[in-house]
Amino acid sequence: MDLTCPIPLQNTSHVLLAHGGGGKLMQDLIDKMFAMAFGKSCTSHDAAQLTMPTGELALTTDSYVVQPLFFPGGDIGKLAVYGTVNDLTMAGARPLYLSVGFILEEGLPLETLWRIVISMQQAAQAVGIQIVTGDTKVVERGKGDGIFINTSGVGVIGSGLKIQPKAIAPGDAILVSGDLGRHGIAIMAQREGLAFETTIESDCAPLVNPVQDLLSAGIGVHCLRDVTRGGLAAVLNELAIASGFNMEVIERDIPVREDVRGACEILGFDPLYVANEGRFVAFVPPDQADKSLEILRSHQANAQIIGQVTTPLSPDDIAPVTLKNAFGIARILDRLSGEQLPRIC
Amino acid sequence: MDLTCPIPLQNTSHVLLAHGGGGKLMQDLIDKMFAMAFGKSCTSHDAAQLTMPTGELALTTDSYVVQPLFFPGGDIGKLAVYGTVNDLTMAGARPLYLSVGFILEEGLPLETLWRIVISMQQAAQAVGIQIVTGDTKVVERGKGDGIFINTSGVGVIGSGLKIQPKAIAPGDAILVSGDLGRHGIAIMAQREGLAFETTIESDCAPLVNPVQDLLSAGIGVHCLRDVTRGGLAAVLNELAIASGFNMEVIERDIPVREDVRGACEILGFDPLYVANEGRFVAFVPPDQADKSLEILRSHQANAQIIGQVTTPLSPDDIAPVTLKNAFGIARILDRLSGEQLPRIC
Repeated sequence: MDLTCPIPLQNTSHVLLAHGGGGKLMQDLIDKMFAMAFGKSCTSHDAAQLTMPTGELALTTDSYVVQPLFFPGGDIGKLAVYGTVNDLTMAGARPLYLSVGFILEEGLPLETLWRIVISMQQAAQAVGIQIVTGDTKVVERGKGDGIFINTSGVGVIGSGLKIQPKAIAPGDAILVSGDLGRHGIAIMAQREGLAFETTIESDCAPLVNPVQDLLSAGIGVHCLRDVTRGGLAAVLNELAIASGFNMEVIERDIPVREDVRGACEILGFDPLYVANEGRFVAFVPPDQADKSLEILRSHQANAQIIGQVTTPLSPDDIAPVTLKNAFGIARILDRLSGEQLPRIC
Repeated sequence: MDLTCPIPLQNTSHVLLAHGGGGKLMQDLIDKMFAMAFGKSCTSHDAAQLTMPTGELALTTDSYVVQPLFFPGGDIGKLAVYGTVNDLTMAGARPLYLSVGFILEEGLPLETLWRIVISMQQAAQAVGIQIVTGDTKVVERGKGDGIFINTSGVGVIGSGLKIQPKAIAPGDAILVSGDLGRHGIAIMAQREGLAFETTIESDCAPLVNPVQDLLSAGIGVHCLRDVTRGGLAAVLNELAIASGFNMEVIERDIPVREDVRGACEILGFDPLYVANEGRFVAFVPPDQADKSLEILRSHQANAQIIGQVTTPLSPDDIAPVTLKNAFGIARILDRLSGEQLPRIC
């Protein structure tokens, strides 16, 4: 593939309103940028026509509004591909096809768009998902924020596989696939212009391989969930309520890197509430916990068993997740009302 | 379904940044608005798990940024459902599932969001498509414009059906499914605060039924395309290039209502370049043109045969679409460079 930067397009180096208008300038943008990066087939008709292997279909969507657009360890394009691929993976699906919808702000440098497009192409290639259809809209200066990206993903779920909150059972071991807090801290440090001793890079990464390895090793995975907005606290609370079971996690077993812990202290964040973009929790039967951990550690050395599913929720349980500290004292791990970090993804 | 307005939510009547944060406020928005309108199943997991009938899969995506959000004949929500459903329909697909991604601006009245959500639910119900998964992001005041909506659609294509530009053949009759120009003029009149003698309503409508009727009557449809951004001129030029054939249309046969024609004159627009949201062109074998017209007219009385596909394009043909006026004089129907009407959809 020829990835030479095609700028300027028709004598302009910035996005114009007309790039969203359905005319020649829009066609020029599609031909010279999107078709170049994603392949011609993604741009030729209103809907992509696709073959579908046997199995159930998984469909997911996410919009990405992260600021800044480029950050240590990633950018909005990479995030938009891996984020949606990860949502498919969490349903036990094999990712197949991706749609891309751009909302561009008038005046965005085309060079910025190109960098993002190339990053998306490379991320898609890395996980073997095809970008098959897309859409571009342009809004006036001051009515957007550079670029917003929606990606929707289609995957196929192997027959009989039901990886979902309702499959969570009492006694299930809760594993986390790696250290927590890096994505949120990478973004915040960049946004606030903070420099730490070492640059903290986002954990932004595809989760296809560790999940595929769990499944092909015959682990009876009950549920998977990527630990994104709201962090571990939000995810465990949501799954506790959806499954109908209380959960208990051990504070010292939750992996957080020293530099991330330090940055959290400086910035005033709790790492258990910070977003990640390449980490997930897995719920597996207790007798398969050690084998699962071994598989996860072959991908991320700091994967951990962090707790277990306990008793059924009673109707008036409002705090289903407890956190045990080093002294064995339990406290409630509640969700926050909002988000400590807006526009983290 | 109980469609009582659930506002205020947790003591607020406007969108807060925290509504996009993955915490309790976001869950509240999902539970009280989206689950109420779209059904609980759409909100419970990262990816929707769906059964898929046999056939090829169609996938399409569109973002909607129309201003104003409410206009005569529709609103951004109705547009977001029908627009994407129509893209599936144009590929000959039966629409099945829809994803919805909201990008909300901080401060949007929740009452506005609710009206849009209900409009989406009613539109989805009208065409029998299920909204199965969604996402919500919130951006700061001044970084968006009230609400942007992405919808992605999945449909199934009956076996053997290949409705696409490459199937267009010389001699094909070109039909348009109804009068042109209403959507763009409805938006512009609203935006400019213009009042005409009669209110011109958008043609915003689903195209499933007329297309289904063409197919079940055994019409050998070669290609379908909804006449949206850039109007008839953009669509015919795009299809001429994609198919490799020149096309000729007869000016007086192109249906444009008198009031729309008058409004176009006042506003300085050419109706052939104005966007529609409930009209399509169909390419059918010449011997099936009359039967096709009869079917289209059973849905819209002003459907018309407007022209035909002529000779193969030679490599240096740069103006593949010609328009013949009442005196038989042909002129080039070129595409515009940009769009006369930004943010029309």
